[in-house]
Amino acid sequence: MTGQTYTLGFVGIGLMGRPMTLRLLAAGFSVNVWNRSADKLDEVIAAGAKACSSIGELVAASDVVILCLADTPVVETVVMLDVAAHGGADKLLIDLSSIHPETTRQLAAHLQAICGMRWVDAPVSGGTAGAEQGTLAIMAGGAVEDIVIAREVLKPLYSRLTHMGPIGSGQATKICNQMIVGCNVLVIAEMMALAKAAGVDAAKIPEALAGGFADSKPLQIVGPEMADNRFEPVKWRVKTLLKDLNMAVDLSGKQGSAVPMSGLAAQLMQLHGSHGFLEQDPSTLIKLYSQD
Amino acid sequence: MTGQTYTLGFVGIGLMGRPMTLRLLAAGFSVNVWNRSADKLDEVIAAGAKACSSIGELVAASDVVILCLADTPVVETVVMLDVAAHGGADKLLIDLSSIHPETTRQLAAHLQAICGMRWVDAPVSGGTAGAEQGTLAIMAGGAVEDIVIAREVLKPLYSRLTHMGPIGSGQATKICNQMIVGCNVLVIAEMMALAKAAGVDAAKIPEALAGGFADSKPLQIVGPEMADNRFEPVKWRVKTLLKDLNMAVDLSGKQGSAVPMSGLAAQLMQLHGSHGFLEQDPSTLIKLYSQD
Repeated sequence: MTGQTYTLGFVGIGLMGRPMTLRLLAAGFSVNVWNRSADKLDEVIAAGAKACSSIGELVAASDVVILCLADTPVVETVVMLDVAAHGGADKLLIDLSSIHPETTRQLAAHLQAICGMRWVDAPVSGGTAGAEQGTLAIMAGGAVEDIVIAREVLKPLYSRLTHMGPIGSGQATKICNQMIVGCNVLVIAEMMALAKAAGVDAAKIPEALAGGFADSKPLQIVGPEMADNRFEPVKWRVKTLLKDLNMAVDLSGKQGSAVPMSGLAAQLMQLHGSHGFLEQDPSTLIKLYSQD
Repeated sequence: MTGQTYTLGFVGIGLMGRPMTLRLLAAGFSVNVWNRSADKLDEVIAAGAKACSSIGELVAASDVVILCLADTPVVETVVMLDVAAHGGADKLLIDLSSIHPETTRQLAAHLQAICGMRWVDAPVSGGTAGAEQGTLAIMAGGAVEDIVIAREVLKPLYSRLTHMGPIGSGQATKICNQMIVGCNVLVIAEMMALAKAAGVDAAKIPEALAGGFADSKPLQIVGPEMADNRFEPVKWRVKTLLKDLNMAVDLSGKQGSAVPMSGLAAQLMQLHGSHGFLEQDPSTLIKLYSQD
């Protein structure tokens, strides 16, 4: 007996999906899991998850299918090829991935038309630490009755889940979130490099600014890493911020609303990525400004 | 009897200086005050402050002279014309203003040479709310023994005072602080405008992002104001952020360390200022991106 109403299926056991799945298991959920690289499943299986041999098998065996995938094309492929063929009107899809709001609305409409399966977009903010501690901020879009289910199922993961409006609103809000985060990390990088150049003890800066207007979780996480040139372990990736900043620029063009700061941030993030840092931690951005 | 060791002199009773002086008085300090516009003094005098007819009179009557002034030229004038002529080796100057680190070092050396008076640069972050609640973050530069006095005197004002190094280090750290704040407010403005254009309920964004990676005091303060197009009362000013961003760009050139995000932010802030918003609240930045 699990003590929980819904059987879950979790697709995408990566940096974020692994700690989330562990928390869902600890909360008493039955969780079916699938990952492209099966060797990433060992820890969640040891904690009680049931490995499925295909996404189709996972969808058939689950009431609520949770996706935590890399980007828009991956979600598109998984939904169109695997979920649509095995979904049903009694099932709900919750997409924790950060993908394009327009694609979200298109995929949700497609899934509804093919098999009646419902959709909640619920991208998260808070990083791996938030996933491990269950303190994520979740921005959700969807019908009110589906948001009720999402709140219940995702409860072990968040300290706050906000219903932003209809399907796609969660993704649009996540882009807003990432505009702030991506720009802020780039500003922290150029600021820490300037502080070092100006002879300030850069290691003291995150502490000095704590509690003030400049403070943020990124400052307290990447600030000390940048001060010490400490770039391991990789907790989040440059390519994720680049993807989200590029979506902001795309949305800006479609809405006719200028985003000059995010536009420059997307290009600086691309520049850093082009130096070979796409898979590395954003703390490596200090290297873009290093005078060594 | 005040119960406090030092008699204070506070120069500059403005948006920040007024609540600070009230807190120092409430903590039992004798406080001499001076302001360019004497009519701003009514409230602090009613609370027990003693008005001086000149800065010279204030310096002569005080053990610790606290400056909270608008910018580098004003501090330069006050120190060179008034403080230097009435200072002494038994007195300490604490400069809460945000001014250039190099000017700070030059003025401190000058004051030391003329009258032996010591200097602590102690710029603050946290805005008028922080000043009113005594929760400012203070970044201090100076000799260890003078920082001890600054900690004691400024105790009613801060939740954190960090000693960043020798004279000037506090100002360099404040510039670092303002790079983050100035850029962040601009990103929040373009983000809120994009959210409105994309049909998201922008008023829900600050709440949705609370506790996540994008959260910050500016988001919780200007975010709701921008969502509601509510720009009064003026709690801080566009011109202050512009001044500090321009100092960041200047320091960047002197140190040979690039600050592309802060450079763009300085120009966007200048653009907004050129539309007549220099004296207005930074929440008005949403108007730069309005499609109305």
